[in-house]
Amino acid sequence: MSAKLFAVACLAFAASITHAQSNEPIQPIRPPAVIKPALVELGKKLFFDPRLSKSGFISCNSCHNLSMGGSDNLATSIGHNWHKGPINAPTVLNSSLNVAQFWDGRAKDLQEQAAGPIANPGEMAFTHELAIETLISIPQYVTEFQQAFGPGPVTMGRVTEAIAAFEETLVTPNSRFDKWLLGDTNALTTDELEGYRIFKSSGCTACHNGQAAGGASFRKMGVVEPYRTSNPAEGRMAVTGRDADRFSFKVPTLRNVELTYPYFHDGAAATLAEAVDVMARIQIGKQYSPAENARVVAFLKTLTGDQPQFLLPQLPPSSDKTPRPAPFKN
Amino acid sequence: MSAKLFAVACLAFAASITHAQSNEPIQPIRPPAVIKPALVELGKKLFFDPRLSKSGFISCNSCHNLSMGGSDNLATSIGHNWHKGPINAPTVLNSSLNVAQFWDGRAKDLQEQAAGPIANPGEMAFTHELAIETLISIPQYVTEFQQAFGPGPVTMGRVTEAIAAFEETLVTPNSRFDKWLLGDTNALTTDELEGYRIFKSSGCTACHNGQAAGGASFRKMGVVEPYRTSNPAEGRMAVTGRDADRFSFKVPTLRNVELTYPYFHDGAAATLAEAVDVMARIQIGKQYSPAENARVVAFLKTLTGDQPQFLLPQLPPSSDKTPRPAPFKN
Repeated sequence: MSAKLFAVACLAFAASITHAQSNEPIQPIRPPAVIKPALVELGKKLFFDPRLSKSGFISCNSCHNLSMGGSDNLATSIGHNWHKGPINAPTVLNSSLNVAQFWDGRAKDLQEQAAGPIANPGEMAFTHELAIETLISIPQYVTEFQQAFGPGPVTMGRVTEAIAAFEETLVTPNSRFDKWLLGDTNALTTDELEGYRIFKSSGCTACHNGQAAGGASFRKMGVVEPYRTSNPAEGRMAVTGRDADRFSFKVPTLRNVELTYPYFHDGAAATLAEAVDVMARIQIGKQYSPAENARVVAFLKTLTGDQPQFLLPQLPPSSDKTPRPAPFKN
Repeated sequence: MSAKLFAVACLAFAASITHAQSNEPIQPIRPPAVIKPALVELGKKLFFDPRLSKSGFISCNSCHNLSMGGSDNLATSIGHNWHKGPINAPTVLNSSLNVAQFWDGRAKDLQEQAAGPIANPGEMAFTHELAIETLISIPQYVTEFQQAFGPGPVTMGRVTEAIAAFEETLVTPNSRFDKWLLGDTNALTTDELEGYRIFKSSGCTACHNGQAAGGASFRKMGVVEPYRTSNPAEGRMAVTGRDADRFSFKVPTLRNVELTYPYFHDGAAATLAEAVDVMARIQIGKQYSPAENARVVAFLKTLTGDQPQFLLPQLPPSSDKTPRPAPFKN
């Protein structure tokens, strides 16, 4: 889309909101803006490239699988050498709307986040030095970096900027709920609308609000009742050092929640029904009836938006100088 | 493409061959025919679906990565629990042209092959029973099986038929070499043509011939000189039981060989230059000069064809009844 066309689309979008449900706590997701296509295309390739891992087997897409709601649908992820990850992989979809990245918010933005897993020994287990050595040995990547950034060396700053630029395109507009927000009164069933009413009146929107229906704040897991888990993650305290932040986590987005099972930072809730039941009890002290629970679940499933649509990327081949992966070496 | 259009395209294609290099030992690849789109679309999803593995992490695409020439670019693959595979994963590209599947040809066709890795404890480590239980718990899959096959239960026969139908579309026409074969005399450089001349006159086309430039026969690895490897694979003997077939392997296709490094059944040759050098010495008793080797390599790189072009598939979500993956359970 050209910049001009995009501006027109944005205006039309803004106008449509003002004529619809503009006072709702959840707001429609704006369509993604691709300002720098060369940068986004490069970032897409890097996102899918397992050569950014020691094994040559794990890419960003391994745990943030864009065929599966931007998640791996595992309680906790599988890393290098089948390492069991410490925490549930959050969806990359709409992650640009998050106040910060990771469950504890330790990365301020997507670019800072992208550097983490590459060098994490329990995830991709590579080093930033080897990642750069790999990329600059691949002629087509060198060309694409020049096209995206202009002259200058391939640096981790550029690698992560490209990955972040791609991830910024991974927003999911046009959910049925957004259509309803934008004025299509037939977009939701009576049950789904009733589920939304229960969701709002219970106070869920105190945390799950905004475009992403979450992602904007850190909240304690277990406000009314303690949350019991064997997962040792301490949440936001790991970043702030403040005891008051113990067990405080970034509120996850509810966008595409139908696709991003299992739920919670420990992935302990296998189904939406279970997640809704636990949240209602421990966060707001409510026990939903089965019918109420089913309606809230029905509402949540209306938050599934358009999934990313793009051609499977083709990765540029290694050259004779490219370091070879070492999946079985310690 | 409609059946009629396809027939016209085939006739045009056949006519173009007769006017071009029709007597060459390598023949142009025919464009893929998609006869049953619903079946192919279903097979594509299954190919990308890690829920056909015990861990929920490994799909067909993990080791036959369609972003990387239909291979994993590893010497031997990584399986469940980081199991080290016994043999190099052959590319899935153009695999429909193979005389049989696997290096030892133990599967007669793609459908038979597709059943293997799902239940192999060192690969996807699932069972066929659990694969079916998983698929029938996913409403959208059940619908798509009905659309592709008509009434009847979801069976492994149907699962593997769909995967094979998708794989049959993974052919790679329009390589520069094929353009030359079809009459475009400017498609190859002098060096590339000279490389092809060396390739032919050395006798490489005795094994690497036909549309796939390989894949049509089993041949002993080490005809003139023994091939030294620590890999214990015995090749075709494992199927025939005949001692004469020891160390006889299916001749790999050279199509897209630029993308499918490392080479040989043990993945021991990291580069094309190394693979050409070893093949020349042990199969035909030649020692190429560096210039000859470089020209053969240049020719081989002209065999890279159009890679599969399709939208990243979106997998249907699990239901509450879907068995959950168990990546860390023995």
